[in-house]
Amino acid sequence: MKKYNFYSGPAILPPVVFQQAAKAVIELDDIGLSLIEISHRSKEFQAVVDEAVQHVQELFHLNADQKVLFLQGGATMQFCQIPYNILNSDEKAAYLDIGSWSKKAIKEAKIFGNVEVIASSADKNYSYLPKTYTIPSDATYFHITTNETIHGLQMQDIPQSPVPLIADMSSDIFSRELDGKQFSLIYAGAQKNIGPSGATLVVVNERMLGKVSRQIPTILDYRNHIKDGSLHNTPSTFSIYVCLLTLRWIREQGGLTVIEQRNISKAAKLYAEIDRNVLFEGTVAREDRSLMNVCWKVLRPELEEPFHAFAKENGCVGIKGHRSVGGLRASIYNAMPVKGVELLVELMQEFERKNA
Amino acid sequence: MKKYNFYSGPAILPPVVFQQAAKAVIELDDIGLSLIEISHRSKEFQAVVDEAVQHVQELFHLNADQKVLFLQGGATMQFCQIPYNILNSDEKAAYLDIGSWSKKAIKEAKIFGNVEVIASSADKNYSYLPKTYTIPSDATYFHITTNETIHGLQMQDIPQSPVPLIADMSSDIFSRELDGKQFSLIYAGAQKNIGPSGATLVVVNERMLGKVSRQIPTILDYRNHIKDGSLHNTPSTFSIYVCLLTLRWIREQGGLTVIEQRNISKAAKLYAEIDRNVLFEGTVAREDRSLMNVCWKVLRPELEEPFHAFAKENGCVGIKGHRSVGGLRASIYNAMPVKGVELLVELMQEFERKNA
Repeated sequence: MKKYNFYSGPAILPPVVFQQAAKAVIELDDIGLSLIEISHRSKEFQAVVDEAVQHVQELFHLNADQKVLFLQGGATMQFCQIPYNILNSDEKAAYLDIGSWSKKAIKEAKIFGNVEVIASSADKNYSYLPKTYTIPSDATYFHITTNETIHGLQMQDIPQSPVPLIADMSSDIFSRELDGKQFSLIYAGAQKNIGPSGATLVVVNERMLGKVSRQIPTILDYRNHIKDGSLHNTPSTFSIYVCLLTLRWIREQGGLTVIEQRNISKAAKLYAEIDRNVLFEGTVAREDRSLMNVCWKVLRPELEEPFHAFAKENGCVGIKGHRSVGGLRASIYNAMPVKGVELLVELMQEFERKNA
Repeated sequence: MKKYNFYSGPAILPPVVFQQAAKAVIELDDIGLSLIEISHRSKEFQAVVDEAVQHVQELFHLNADQKVLFLQGGATMQFCQIPYNILNSDEKAAYLDIGSWSKKAIKEAKIFGNVEVIASSADKNYSYLPKTYTIPSDATYFHITTNETIHGLQMQDIPQSPVPLIADMSSDIFSRELDGKQFSLIYAGAQKNIGPSGATLVVVNERMLGKVSRQIPTILDYRNHIKDGSLHNTPSTFSIYVCLLTLRWIREQGGLTVIEQRNISKAAKLYAEIDRNVLFEGTVAREDRSLMNVCWKVLRPELEEPFHAFAKENGCVGIKGHRSVGGLRASIYNAMPVKGVELLVELMQEFERKNA
């Protein structure tokens, strides 16, 4: 039986990417060597990095100041690396608190400077996005999380900011058409829409750098990675290669406009069923619902585990809320086919017939 | 034509590892999902981490205080992470300077505390290992590099240390039988003898931790990774899985005693030819020669590039000194078969017949 993978990350990737990645692990492009045994400084791997960078530049419409890096450590490393590089200890950064991931980012920034949380939806367990807030014009930067993987929130519009805008896009990067030029720094763990785990995409405007007075360890200083084109030290070569394969797949699908329309359509089907089905209820304000991580709950809590088991038995795996919040969650990233969502909807309907 | 990969890293791995890794990228153990799309918190991946940790514990004969971690960022990240966690700003760490990698480690430690370089072989371009030095008993730790990948030096004996001993074993880990209990911290980028790039093995004695007064960013604090069993945040799952495959292979070969004998034999063949052949000369003091990274030069410099090309044409790739030092280098890690070394020796002899 075909399984559909609704895990939040590491997550589903296109079948062709698995095929091509497996082939490269045996032998890369008929060079007589495996992808994973070649030097990161070989001309073959340089071509991988160059092409991956070019795709990112084009998908985000970047300008020449915006440097594309593939680093290690995930978004969690960026939570500290960003203020380490950009926030002086006597300066202030503005953060929007919309959930677990924002909170982690805020905690790390406080180690390096002052943090002003300008709005938070903690009061309602992160079930909505704060809309009314003022971004202080004296902040060094303003940090947002465009999509909250755990709570299922997504910013439908990117806020206008009077100060440099920094965005954690880990769980909705390349899910829609966006102008990357509005951001001074974008970061994302690869393991949702870009590839497997082990690579972290960072797009940083180099004009932001070189302004802090502290000494930055070499490996954490963005300038070293820019200078060495993501090859300052040995990166996770397999992870970057699979990112390239996934970026190629995005282009082959017709680019982000096509991807975005497909994502809107998939999410609409699933939310429509959540709203219609008498057993279920969405957990997030409608206007803030994520197109990537669909969160809902079973109105009769005793049916939550049975539904999860029923979905799993019938080929839908990973439909479980994050351990910190519970409930149900279906992550429907770019690579989730419409058929996967349709199967899940059918299972929700069948479960309703049996249990309503 | 079969190619033998003498790259210094990412490096050759056993053919069976490539086969098993490729299979898992298509589907892991008949679970209906690819290795690279499953959650790092799934029971399947937990089993991968658990088994990999167990192999490391057994190969190094560790005690219960010594925690095994698979992190990201390579040895280069450890250069700063170690002093960040262990060295107070008013304390002193002792470092042995035996080449490019030691120098990088020393540079980062200076950001966090005082560093005493107790001996260096910089005076002779790192062509030998310093033997006479005193390890200060008031140092917080003593840092060594057991094998210098770039210069081709290897410590045949691990020094006795009156203070906690920390070792960068990136390029000779699991190449020989060693008692891990003599170290307070061992680290190694995976991409030589343990697996592909993207994973960093750290074995840390937890009694070393919690003694610095500075605030450590969450992602850099070893205690968080210990608490969460290397799953504090999303690791490079593919890299860790391939480490497991490689560790299994080491066990299947008969363990480190067998591996060590094979490495001694391979290196002996290659050094014997370097010493015999009139065209070549070793670049390192004989007693300090590395069994992993064999460095030598062509006595007539104009023949260096032709020899490199000749070796490559005949199936020996990667025989080139590091861009910072030049000359020739053959990395003959665990997975390099004896036949690969024998072919290289034959090519050296043929090149001599043509050019002597």
